[in-house]
Amino acid sequence: DTKLKIFSLESNHLLADEIAKHVGLPLGKSSVKRFSDGEIQINIEESIRGCDVFIIQSTSNPVNDHLMELLIMIDALKRASAVTINVVMPYYGYARQDRKARSREPITAKLVANLLETAGADRVIALDLHAPQIQGFFDIPIDHLMGEPILSDYFLEKEDIDLESLVIVSPDHGGVTRARKMADRLKAPIAIIDKRRPKPNVAEVMNIVGDINGKTAIIIDDIIDTAGTISIAAQALIDKGAKEVYACCTHPVLSGPAFERIENSAIKELIVTNSINLPQEGRPAKIVQLSVAELLAQAIVRIYEQESVSILFD
Amino acid sequence: DTKLKIFSLESNHLLADEIAKHVGLPLGKSSVKRFSDGEIQINIEESIRGCDVFIIQSTSNPVNDHLMELLIMIDALKRASAVTINVVMPYYGYARQDRKARSREPITAKLVANLLETAGADRVIALDLHAPQIQGFFDIPIDHLMGEPILSDYFLEKEDIDLESLVIVSPDHGGVTRARKMADRLKAPIAIIDKRRPKPNVAEVMNIVGDINGKTAIIIDDIIDTAGTISIAAQALIDKGAKEVYACCTHPVLSGPAFERIENSAIKELIVTNSINLPQEGRPAKIVQLSVAELLAQAIVRIYEQESVSILFD
Ligand SMILES: Nc1ncnc2c1ncn2[C@@H]1O[C@H](COP(=O)(O)O)[C@@H](O)[C@H]1O
Ligand SMILES: Nc1ncnc2c1ncn2[C@@H]1O[C@H](COP(=O)(O)O)[C@@H](O)[C@H]1O
Repeated sequence: DTKLKIFSLESNHLLADEIAKHVGLPLGKSSVKRFSDGEIQINIEESIRGCDVFIIQSTSNPVNDHLMELLIMIDALKRASAVTINVVMPYYGYARQDRKARSREPITAKLVANLLETAGADRVIALDLHAPQIQGFFDIPIDHLMGEPILSDYFLEKEDIDLESLVIVSPDHGGVTRARKMADRLKAPIAIIDKRRPKPNVAEVMNIVGDINGKTAIIIDDIIDTAGTISIAAQALIDKGAKEVYACCTHPVLSGPAFERIENSAIKELIVTNSINLPQEGRPAKIVQLSVAELLAQAIVRIYEQESVSILFD
Repeated sequence: DTKLKIFSLESNHLLADEIAKHVGLPLGKSSVKRFSDGEIQINIEESIRGCDVFIIQSTSNPVNDHLMELLIMIDALKRASAVTINVVMPYYGYARQDRKARSREPITAKLVANLLETAGADRVIALDLHAPQIQGFFDIPIDHLMGEPILSDYFLEKEDIDLESLVIVSPDHGGVTRARKMADRLKAPIAIIDKRRPKPNVAEVMNIVGDINGKTAIIIDDIIDTAGTISIAAQALIDKGAKEVYACCTHPVLSGPAFERIENSAIKELIVTNSINLPQEGRPAKIVQLSVAELLAQAIVRIYEQESVSILFD
């Protein structure tokens, strides 16, 4: 008989606390400090012998530090005789480097998978990987949860939105499957933004495939990073006759000019999850953050109980 | 027939330039940039198909960034069909985490070895590993070069030092072998600093084993980090009758208060190598930096020519 223990690393303590509460366990005692020269020092302050251990860590910015924390923690747990080491990565950094787009590029998303396995991870629980193919980068079991139902539920329960006049918009061809799922749940049609560069060094044109006229548009994406594309897309939707534009995504990377762009954009409200911790400072009031804690807690309990987690996939 | 190519990453461009000059080759063209969210983007800007590639990178502070640069670069080179990937690490970060001193500690030095192999390194060239046992952490060939001869030569050629009245001092029991080697080369006796804590929560006492009275003491260590120990040791040597105190080490980590402590210490001159790049700002004038470029260049050429590098070990 094994025991369940959940540890948090540094990327997202708020989410880890919430997950632990949903599971009904205190977080395991551990600390992450830095030596004077910046090297990471991890202390696990309670026995984990005979335990199924779950580590909560998003490899968000600063990605290299968060990844090394995770690898060192896995190494320490392995050497301390954990029965299984399960890595819960609400956000999987480097996921966009998932193929060689040009010669001599690395495939860092695969490298990260290999590093996790080498360190000693037995299982990975991920949320909305940038490409579902990243599951195949692992030789260990990986559970791939989706943020879309949480985002969709928000709109279903929203009072001041007309569910009859919605259109779900994919910001690119890669995201159509996700938009389709949300559209099914919200019983709405979809539209696709078809970016095209007419000539080299000429600005992209945002063509919209589908009917948006007079409708409330909801753009859905997996990651919003600098918010450049989403801001331009929102404006294009308004220009082409949409009544109002909401945007939503699972992973609010929101780097560089993102806060400012969102603030100044035509987006009425941006709905994101807490897969990545967001600073309060400078955060536009129109950002609404929903929690994935319950979903991840359910996954943890089901994995620990050796039940199927596929029930959580939709 | 393979070709030799040498690439530099971000930790130590000056040293890499010098190494390339000694080898008589331009550095390979590559760039390391950051995406807006902090993720590393590496571009290799020339073909390396059919090449024996050497990458120069010290995993010095910021250690996690420097390590990830290295792993991603190895991944890119491997996918671009390099014949061999040889990693030159003048400074090997996390080397001090080389054993479990307490329960549930990681062995990060071993983790790093595994990560390098997983990424695809074929060979490692290292300098003064904190423990020579780290060689055994690798399943690939590792060449372990020594900084001591370069440091010793400096003193042998120094004009204003009395070679007849030297004593070589090891700052702890772990460093006696290194001190012994320097002592042999300088034909001098050795002394050892024997730290002892008389009672818990009482300051350590620096006892000196060996005759230092009226002598010029040279303390030798592998790493000087915050310079706490070395400053106290220098004062203890002066207090116990040494005429003057020099200090030297291979790896000038020099983090936190190190510069100030060295400036204010009894140390007359601190001799280090350029295994780690030192900022100019705030650097005490008494720090002398010697180059390991020629030594590393020789190792690279000998490995490329498939000659033994053991000739360089002494
Ligand atoms: N952190 C990042 N920020 C911005 N672009 C990235 C990042 N990582 C990878 N990329 C690039 O984004 C592209 C993949 O995005 P996508 O086409 O949406 O899958 C690739 O060309 C990558 O070079
Ligand atoms: N970056 C670091 N800075 C300071 N101490 C460290 C560092 N890494 C490891 N250590 C500790 O230093 C000790 C090893 O030093 P040593 O006894 O000189 O081999 C171990 O107890 C480590 O926990």
